[in-house]
This record gives sequence, C-alpha cells and structure tokens, in this order.
Amino acid sequence: MFENLPKRVHIREVGPRDGLQNESVFVPTEVKKEFIQRLAAAGVSAIEITSFVNPKWIPALADCAEIGSRFSDMPGIATNALVPNMKGLEGAEQAGMKDISVFMSATEAHNKSNINKSIDETLRQFETLVPAAKARGMQVRAGLSTAFGCPYEGETDVRQVVRIVRALRGMGVDEMGIADTIGVADPLQVQRVLEQVLPICPVQEVSLHFHDTQGTALANIMVAMEMGITHFDSSLGGLGGCPYAPGASGNVPTEHLVYAFERMGIETGIDLEKLLEVGVYMQQVLGHPLPSNGLKAYLGRKQRAATTAVKAAAAAAI
Amino acid sequence: MFENLPKRVHIREVGPRDGLQNESVFVPTEVKKEFIQRLAAAGVSAIEITSFVNPKWIPALADCAEIGSRFSDMPGIATNALVPNMKGLEGAEQAGMKDISVFMSATEAHNKSNINKSIDETLRQFETLVPAAKARGMQVRAGLSTAFGCPYEGETDVRQVVRIVRALRGMGVDEMGIADTIGVADPLQVQRVLEQVLPICPVQEVSLHFHDTQGTALANIMVAMEMGITHFDSSLGGLGGCPYAPGASGNVPTEHLVYAFERMGIETGIDLEKLLEVGVYMQQVLGHPLPSNGLKAYLGRKQRAATTAVKAAAAAAI
Repeated sequence: MFENLPKRVHIREVGPRDGLQNESVFVPTEVKKEFIQRLAAAGVSAIEITSFVNPKWIPALADCAEIGSRFSDMPGIATNALVPNMKGLEGAEQAGMKDISVFMSATEAHNKSNINKSIDETLRQFETLVPAAKARGMQVRAGLSTAFGCPYEGETDVRQVVRIVRALRGMGVDEMGIADTIGVADPLQVQRVLEQVLPICPVQEVSLHFHDTQGTALANIMVAMEMGITHFDSSLGGLGGCPYAPGASGNVPTEHLVYAFERMGIETGIDLEKLLEVGVYMQQVLGHPLPSNGLKAYLGRKQRAATTAVKAAAAAAI
Repeated sequence: MFENLPKRVHIREVGPRDGLQNESVFVPTEVKKEFIQRLAAAGVSAIEITSFVNPKWIPALADCAEIGSRFSDMPGIATNALVPNMKGLEGAEQAGMKDISVFMSATEAHNKSNINKSIDETLRQFETLVPAAKARGMQVRAGLSTAFGCPYEGETDVRQVVRIVRALRGMGVDEMGIADTIGVADPLQVQRVLEQVLPICPVQEVSLHFHDTQGTALANIMVAMEMGITHFDSSLGGLGGCPYAPGASGNVPTEHLVYAFERMGIETGIDLEKLLEVGVYMQQVLGHPLPSNGLKAYLGRKQRAATTAVKAAAAAAI
C-alpha cells in the first residue's frame, strides 16, 4: 500500500511563532531564545521564529525585531518569519531574515476575519509584496490557511485552493504551505486536494501543515508522503492553534512526527529524546500542560522512573 | 493508494469497561448504566460493558454482576464482558452474557505483570476456559495485549503473536483482538504484523485495538482497513489506558473514528453529535477533562456558541 515513502522528511517547527503567539500571557523574549536554541540543539533544521506584525494586533510577538536579528543567521538552520505587509517586510529585512512567509486563507470569511481583507484584495497586495521580497533575495513561502475546511464556511472548495495556488506561483512564491488550520481534513480529502495542487506546483515545493483536532494528522501525512510530499510543519508539544478558528486545537506535535517517521525508517535529523526534553522545559516555563499525547507519555515514563529510583535508593539505605 | 476501504466498519466501544476501570475513584453503578444507555442511543452497536474479575483486584468493576445482568440482553446491541478464569465465566453466565472476552499479553513480562502467569500457563488455562464458554453457547473473543510493543520488553516479536493467535484459534476463539496496549505501533508495523496474522485468521474475525499515545492510531487503522479489517475498538473521549503499562495514554477516541470514517464515506451507524454529547455528560460526571482532542474541540465550539448567544440576547435586550 505504501510504495513511495521518502527516505528523509523536512520538519519545520512552528512552535516559537504559531505556538507562542497563542499563549494567553507574553512569553519572555529570553524564553523564546532559549526555546529556539534548544530546538536547534535537538537537530531541528527549520524553525518559524516570529512574525513581523503590528504589536497592537499581536502583542505576543512584539519582540519580533529582537528575535529576528538574533536568529536570522543560524548556521545550518533555516529560520523563517511571517510577514503580512510591506512594513513587516521592512522589519524582516532589517532583522536580516532570508526566508519569509506570507499568509492568507482559502475561504473568504476566514481571510476577512484573520486579515480583514477579501481574497482578491490580499492577492493584489501580494503582487507587490512577494516580488519585493524576492528582489531582496529572500526565499518566499506562502501559507494558505483553511485549505481543507473553514470554521465559518465548512468544507473548502478545492477550486478556490487551485486558483490561489496558481496566482501565488505566478508571483514567484518558492514554497506553497497548504494548511488545515482547524484540523478537519481526512486522508481521502488530502489525496483529492493534492491531486489538484500537484499538477500546478512541483511536489518538492509543497509543504503541509496539519492540526490534530480530530486525530487525523498523521494519517493525512502518510497519504501526502505517499504522493511525494516531504515538507511538513509541526509544533513541539502541540503548542498553538488559531485564535480566529473556533474549536481548533493545536498543531500536530513535532514529537509525534519524529516518533512515527524514525520508527518507519524515515530520517528527520531530530533526536527524539532531546526534543522531548525541550518539551519538558517549555511546559515548565509556560506553567501549563501542553496538549501532546507523546509528551504526556514521556513525562509519565520519567515520573515512574524517578519514583522507582527513589524507592531503590530508600531500600538501599535501609 | 487506498483502493480497498470498506463501506462499513464495526466499532466496539470499550469505555464502560476499559475506560472506567482506570478511573481513580469508583464510578457509581447508576452512572455506568446511564453511560451504556446513552451510547446505545447514539447508535453504538457493540459495547464492552464490564469485566468479571475479583473485586479485590479491580474494585472499579465490583458491580460486574449488576451491570452484566442489566445489559447482557440489549436488542440490536452486542455487549461483551471480560472473563479471566472459570469463576469469571460462571459470573458471566449467571448474568446472561452471550459474548465474552478472554485476554492475555503477547510478551512474557507484561503477561506476568498483568495476570501473574507465564504465556504458556495462560494458554493452558484457556484450553479449558474457551471450550467451556463455547459449550455454554457464548461467542468468545480473545484480546491479545502488547501485540506491537511492551513497556518492559520493547518491540514485540511478531512470531510470538503468530504462535499465540494460532493456539487461540485452535481452541475455537471466534474473534482475535490484536491490541497495541501502549500505543507504540506505526503504520508499517501494522502492515507487517497483519501480513503474518491474516494467513492464519480470517480477516473478518480480526479486530484491532489502538491507543493514540503517539498520535499514530488513525494512520494504523487506515492501513488495517486497506488490508480488509473492519472491526475496531475505541473509547469515548479517549477514556482509559492500562494501569500496568507505564506511560500509556488513552484508547483512540471513538469520536475521532466516527468523525474520520463518516467523512470518508465509511458507515459506522453512530450519530457523531449524539456521541459527543455522551462525552460531555461523562466529562461532567467524572469531574475531569477527558483526553480526546475531538471532544475538546466540540466543547470549545459549544462554549463559543453559548457566548455568542448570550451576547446576542444582551444586545437584543438593549
């Protein structure tokens, strides 16, 4: 059944941006830096570090200039930042970012709710923004939210996805990130959507972004891998979600992907145990449990091992 | 890629037994009854209702006789109960159960830890127990725990699974339940194990039991369905786990399966919204959040809808 699985996949960790943006309190800049450094030390080679947005709209990322400057140049690690407009692009440029992501939704209602523009207005804006980024020598990724379903409009019309992908490709976008923002996609829908997208976008330039809201993320990724996709977004501990997508729970946890991929013989370059320890650290500093089942299981094993060691030491002392 | 998916699957809800057995406080018998009745009203057609075990070992199920008698005969619904030994079989018979499950592990250490016997001792015991149940006209299901991995021994040797399945089939077992008790299986391992099991057990007599400990459950089920399996265990809200399997988190949530199956056009006979409402009820009476992402998303949507309605009413009142 699976005859075309890749030897290696590329995971983009989106926790520092997508994850921390959704925390209810401001995460100190020093914690963000530590998070990014620890991810890199665990072998994560692509990290979405921040978003150059107006801090009035997203106070959680008010330190984007500092985070960008600190991590725009990490040897061997591709760091990217979100950029909503020309002002954001200027900020990203000043910070030395070489890789940016523009973003929009595949459904009108979500695009309106998220960035307060129609889809056509957004595309017109990107006709200036994307070439401006390319002219600065930046790699440009375009993230397409609600590509499978929308909290306001229900299932997304795949023709709308195709129309937007075609328009963005025409502007010179280097990577198309197709996102299931609210975690509604099933494996057969992923197959149907990719059958429409792959003829207009080279498979190595497509990345997928899944949420595990209904437990479908890994099943969806298996289908995508079999169709040749090797780039996936995920978030340590399942951090994140979408504040404008009611009922959405977190991104698929990075540790779930690393676990499953490595067990199936598909290389990620990431050390699972080191990665889980970054999750333990983040859960401690954030002060609340992260949603990931895999992290919960790891914490359970650690706790039991510690209890056993304490009992053994107590017995030895007697 | 998927060319052999079934038109209909059969879900066995194990929450009333597997789920509630793992609650830290005794769940009142009336709550268990309400749970089972509500599941049936949501369209669930197979329910594991209790276990005829010594209440000294599992106090949570001390009301097995009462639950068994009440639900052994539900029109249109197959209810089963676990039976560890002859004493349990007598209890199940007195309660009028027509469908019982014996259970053991595929690894020595887990079998020893869980039922305090070696695998061969267990098989010898079943050589009396299974024919005794068949002689009483009962359907006998055999659940094989740790069939993919063991918390003590690591990955399970598939030859051990094959040996035990062959022995149990020889005793006249009607259904083989292959369980990933600690949720470690990946889709390729499921394919490898089924390739060994299916030649010695008819596909319609195999059921699978997955935990979503690392987010792999639905991906595993997709592979199993493609290989012809149509019987799956799951637990509402992801209730449950295994008290003897360190680090194990809950069963795959029934609502995740119903969501994905129905969306892919695979019938379950279950009404998803009614099922989720049973989850809301159980979360209320148990007094703690259940692990299921799908239930969390449903509760989030409900809460937002209620907030919106209150705001609208307030606005109308002004």
